[in-house]
Amino acid sequence: MRVRFRDAGLAFGKLEPGERNLLSDVAGVRVGHVTIVSNEPTIVRTGVTIIVPGEEIFEKPLSAACSVLNGFGKSIGLMQIEELGQIETPIVLTNTLSVGYAFQGVVELVKTKKKFRTLNPLVGECNDGFLNDILYPAVKPKHVLGAYEKASEVFELGSVGAGTGMVSFGFKGGIGSASRKLKDGHVLGALVLANFGSFEDLTILGKRACEHIKSGVVKKSEGSIVIVLATDVALDSRQLKRVANHSFLALGMLGSPGHHGSGDVCIAFSTKEGRVRDEKELFDELFRAAVESVYEAVCDALFCAETVEGFCGRVEAMPTDWLLNGGR
Amino acid sequence: MRVRFRDAGLAFGKLEPGERNLLSDVAGVRVGHVTIVSNEPTIVRTGVTIIVPGEEIFEKPLSAACSVLNGFGKSIGLMQIEELGQIETPIVLTNTLSVGYAFQGVVELVKTKKKFRTLNPLVGECNDGFLNDILYPAVKPKHVLGAYEKASEVFELGSVGAGTGMVSFGFKGGIGSASRKLKDGHVLGALVLANFGSFEDLTILGKRACEHIKSGVVKKSEGSIVIVLATDVALDSRQLKRVANHSFLALGMLGSPGHHGSGDVCIAFSTKEGRVRDEKELFDELFRAAVESVYEAVCDALFCAETVEGFCGRVEAMPTDWLLNGGR
Amino acid sequence: MRVRFRDAGLAFGKLEPGERNLLSDVAGVRVGHVTIVSNEPTIVRTGVTIIVPGEEIFEKPLSAACSVLNGFGKSIGLMQIEELGQIETPIVLTNTLSVGYAFQGVVELVKTKKKFRTLNPLVGECNDGFLNDILYPAVKPKHVLGAYEKASEVFELGSVGAGTGMVSFGFKGGIGSASRKLKDGHVLGALVLANFGSFEDLTILGKRACEHIKSGVVKKSEGSIVIVLATDVALDSRQLKRVANHSFLALGMLGSPGHHGSGDVCIAFSTKEGRVRDEKELFDELFRAAVESVYEAVCDALFCAETVEGFCGRVEAMPTDWLLNGGR
Amino acid sequence: MRVRFRDAGLAFGKLEPGERNLLSDVAGVRVGHVTIVSNEPTIVRTGVTIIVPGEEIFEKPLSAACSVLNGFGKSIGLMQIEELGQIETPIVLTNTLSVGYAFQGVVELVKTKKKFRTLNPLVGECNDGFLNDILYPAVKPKHVLGAYEKASEVFELGSVGAGTGMVSFGFKGGIGSASRKLKDGHVLGALVLANFGSFEDLTILGKRACEHIKSGVVKKSEGSIVIVLATDVALDSRQLKRVANHSFLALGMLGSPGHHGSGDVCIAFSTKEGRVRDEKELFDELFRAAVESVYEAVCDALFCAETVEGFCGRVEAMPTDWLLNGGR
Repeated sequence: MRVRFRDAGLAFGKLEPGERNLLSDVAGVRVGHVTIVSNEPTIVRTGVTIIVPGEEIFEKPLSAACSVLNGFGKSIGLMQIEELGQIETPIVLTNTLSVGYAFQGVVELVKTKKKFRTLNPLVGECNDGFLNDILYPAVKPKHVLGAYEKASEVFELGSVGAGTGMVSFGFKGGIGSASRKLKDGHVLGALVLANFGSFEDLTILGKRACEHIKSGVVKKSEGSIVIVLATDVALDSRQLKRVANHSFLALGMLGSPGHHGSGDVCIAFSTKEGRVRDEKELFDELFRAAVESVYEAVCDALFCAETVEGFCGRVEAMPTDWLLNGGR
Repeated sequence: MRVRFRDAGLAFGKLEPGERNLLSDVAGVRVGHVTIVSNEPTIVRTGVTIIVPGEEIFEKPLSAACSVLNGFGKSIGLMQIEELGQIETPIVLTNTLSVGYAFQGVVELVKTKKKFRTLNPLVGECNDGFLNDILYPAVKPKHVLGAYEKASEVFELGSVGAGTGMVSFGFKGGIGSASRKLKDGHVLGALVLANFGSFEDLTILGKRACEHIKSGVVKKSEGSIVIVLATDVALDSRQLKRVANHSFLALGMLGSPGHHGSGDVCIAFSTKEGRVRDEKELFDELFRAAVESVYEAVCDALFCAETVEGFCGRVEAMPTDWLLNGGR
Repeated sequence: MRVRFRDAGLAFGKLEPGERNLLSDVAGVRVGHVTIVSNEPTIVRTGVTIIVPGEEIFEKPLSAACSVLNGFGKSIGLMQIEELGQIETPIVLTNTLSVGYAFQGVVELVKTKKKFRTLNPLVGECNDGFLNDILYPAVKPKHVLGAYEKASEVFELGSVGAGTGMVSFGFKGGIGSASRKLKDGHVLGALVLANFGSFEDLTILGKRACEHIKSGVVKKSEGSIVIVLATDVALDSRQLKRVANHSFLALGMLGSPGHHGSGDVCIAFSTKEGRVRDEKELFDELFRAAVESVYEAVCDALFCAETVEGFCGRVEAMPTDWLLNGGR
Repeated sequence: MRVRFRDAGLAFGKLEPGERNLLSDVAGVRVGHVTIVSNEPTIVRTGVTIIVPGEEIFEKPLSAACSVLNGFGKSIGLMQIEELGQIETPIVLTNTLSVGYAFQGVVELVKTKKKFRTLNPLVGECNDGFLNDILYPAVKPKHVLGAYEKASEVFELGSVGAGTGMVSFGFKGGIGSASRKLKDGHVLGALVLANFGSFEDLTILGKRACEHIKSGVVKKSEGSIVIVLATDVALDSRQLKRVANHSFLALGMLGSPGHHGSGDVCIAFSTKEGRVRDEKELFDELFRAAVESVYEAVCDALFCAETVEGFCGRVEAMPTDWLLNGGR
């Protein structure tokens, strides 16, 4: 297993990470993966990742918001978040052409929990069609239930779950996560499904990858990122949207100017009821916590993902030696 | 079979309807239904309706936009319409908890037409849970292909396809359609999936239903409406959005102040490339054509839908005698 | 002085009006007008109307939201409402080309109240260019202070303040107001600056004006409406936006399909802190209260406005006899 | 006079700048400043900057769009851009509490050009209250006409016009500009009014200012940025909005996570009619051109602005020696 960004002695930003430096530093949040890898009947490198905001989600909705930097994507459930400012199911991530089965999987999962007449499943996606034969319907509703059963406060990063076939900045991408502590003891965490970015743009801690790495890179600049933010600060939907809007600045910090074919989506939720005031100091800190967490989560996706050989070729794990003699 | 609003001698508005007074008066547009009715293993009253903007949709996207009056709904595909201003698949309508299978059905359908790596299926929905046991997954991907095969310029209205189990203003609702000719010979058409409104609010041609109808009404005010607008005026996405935004005024004209639990969504597309100027006269006329078409389409859904007995009870077809001695 | 809609024995909707049937039925809200009428050096028929949400507005912002049906308008201050979900000044209404001076008037007004470094004045407008020589800068910052000094719980309707030169549905329009009581004792009120609509569309209580009134109408269909909603229900910004979105359905109920050249804007605020739950019953009632209040406020603008002769001609007060032998 | 970023031997990004590396590399675009500096009756350090998209703007609107990262701002005119997708006046920049007078100045300016009945003046702003006694109304409508008369393809950067009193990243900010050539010969330019950012975040070419500069910095993190983008690529409003949305990534590249009290607004326009296709390669390049131009425009504001002593203290010009032994 590869070493996380911070375990390698690197650090980014002004705020301290939470205990595990994971989305699950927000109490109650759990993450589960189902990884689907097969060479029969075709090359399958895909999966499902579920973010469970807490068991109470099945009984009581949580405040939530979404933000879209570039809407070339197929996420499901955003319209109702916008209207009602809340989520009422776990969030599922998978590949682009499987979001329908993932939706139905959430329906099946919630059936096991309660009676309902309507439901707003939330599904995010990126396109893993380089490593995965995306036209083959490998993901089924049952995989959502499987991922839910495995959901835990401790979870793997990199080429797992929905991240199995993802590519980022020309290297193997996938699932990353990080968190930041606020001065008052609250925490904000991020989980990303990183499938975006061109190698030529990648900049980590002020160093440009293309000045240090000379080979082994896939030329590919489509792709997307789904960001999930969680916090135990009592933010309402409008406030969460503000934080979500700013989280995309992390992509700029990593050197990316964005891409036409990218579905860049952020879903943010709070595990606490109520609403804090829009105070300058708190929101400056929340914006910073979001940007730092997303930045480091993307780094962790790149640090943790293992090399994968798949449908259209091989995507290498990002080398890290060019970063390990310094940083900030 | 019941008689359409206009065939009953009624009329609404200042503009003349197109040849069939249907969405398909816009050349190339076809509509197909699959109606799913069963009493085994549970009470199923649901279905799928497909709107095919033209066979070219599989080769070349069309300008499109969406608008949301109240976003308590689960439609799929709206984010990418917002970003790219276009649709690239037929539009499918079905029940709320089946939109995932409908999404996968569109994926399967398009596989039969071309090679692709990504796709933005468009699915709209209303909740037919009063007449249909909505938790039972009766709708499957294959029904989308079935509906596509049946798509035609002439199509049924009322309790068919996605409209099979819908309820509107306390009466049996479902699929309605109408169209309007513009002065320059172009046409704008509407198709609605009508599942909204309270009996106490229903007002047609200035007459309030509750002053004329005394019995047989279901007390129920949840529900939604999906509106699909098509035109052969060369409107771009921003212009289509303006038309879509105004189409909801028809709900006010029918007496409805809207409802918390409603997913009121409009998807509009143009079959022509290019962009006309934002001239006052044309847009005044387009807004009027949209409002009149939607108004009359809802009336037609109520005029055409037959009584249905289902999961939670019986919903009567709307009597029409109270309207047939007058109108405007 | 002309007789208000309800004083003429008419009524609309299911909910009861508040005590005065005015925006000021929401405790603390006051409205003031400055009417500017002159024939020197040119024909001036314009003015300023101020809505003071309460004296506390200068100390503490209130939750607020805005909604736009058609954005052909020049209102100032909406962006910050969208971001912060609050208002921090009174709302000023005036003519289109004077919103800059009105903005500066709010700055001057607030200087008399407190120290500040930044401020978000809110100004709405309609175009009174038919009756008023709008290119002549008759409105000055001092008029905002003048209107503020006159602000009262009891205020005039019709051709006063910002309504002095407005035209609606071919008749003299201007300021209208109404309110509705909710079941739990709370109240929602509306004030409109009505300058929209075509004569041929006007429908009141199911009667079409053009079938009853044969002369004296100005052919003119540009124009706009600014709606201000106030309530003492503790709604947050997102919830107020939902109510604001639905308020436009009243325009449909009055027969209008909207117009290209219209700036249709609603600003809604709550005088109470906190946030109620998004319960179906409450929001159904709030949507209804908003739609009924706006509908009746427009009627009152038409009922109360006196005939005005101005820059481009004469605009008649709407006759009311066609409505006075019935209604609902 | 200070030396521009690129004249100092520095460069950023992959694309080449246009001829002047200014917004005015887009043919027809001109910029004019009025700088207002006075110590009587109070400390005035403010001004007006006008961007004239071309003389034809008074006859024929241009496609335009706006985007808001953080809406704590008072810009005027954005609603109508959103609805009609066009601008019909020059764009004026000034201080926050003078946008009303600037609006009226645009009205006066356009009166000298043509007859009109309605008009949508566009005004952007930042808060210069640290160096300028912002409560004193130094800016008047006449200054807009003065700036228009001075508008030229060659214009000053730094502490001029609207930039006179602005502060950015703890240093003197103000007006910056840059441009990028596209592969097909088209050009995209940016002008910024830079008044945002904290010293501790400033990162240029991968170097963090706080690691190199130890003194002379104002502790201040409020503030805003207004970005104006122009291009001669035939982009429609939706396409310009996409470019505008991405331009904010430059703020992330400069190290900023955003601030609660910031009004971050981008207005983008095209000088060409029509609409190109949403091709991946073009839009990838447009996003890159926007991000690189904004990045370098902010750098130029910091490189060009001279030290200013004002209302609340002194703000130093940013030293540049820490950057001049390298870069990319």
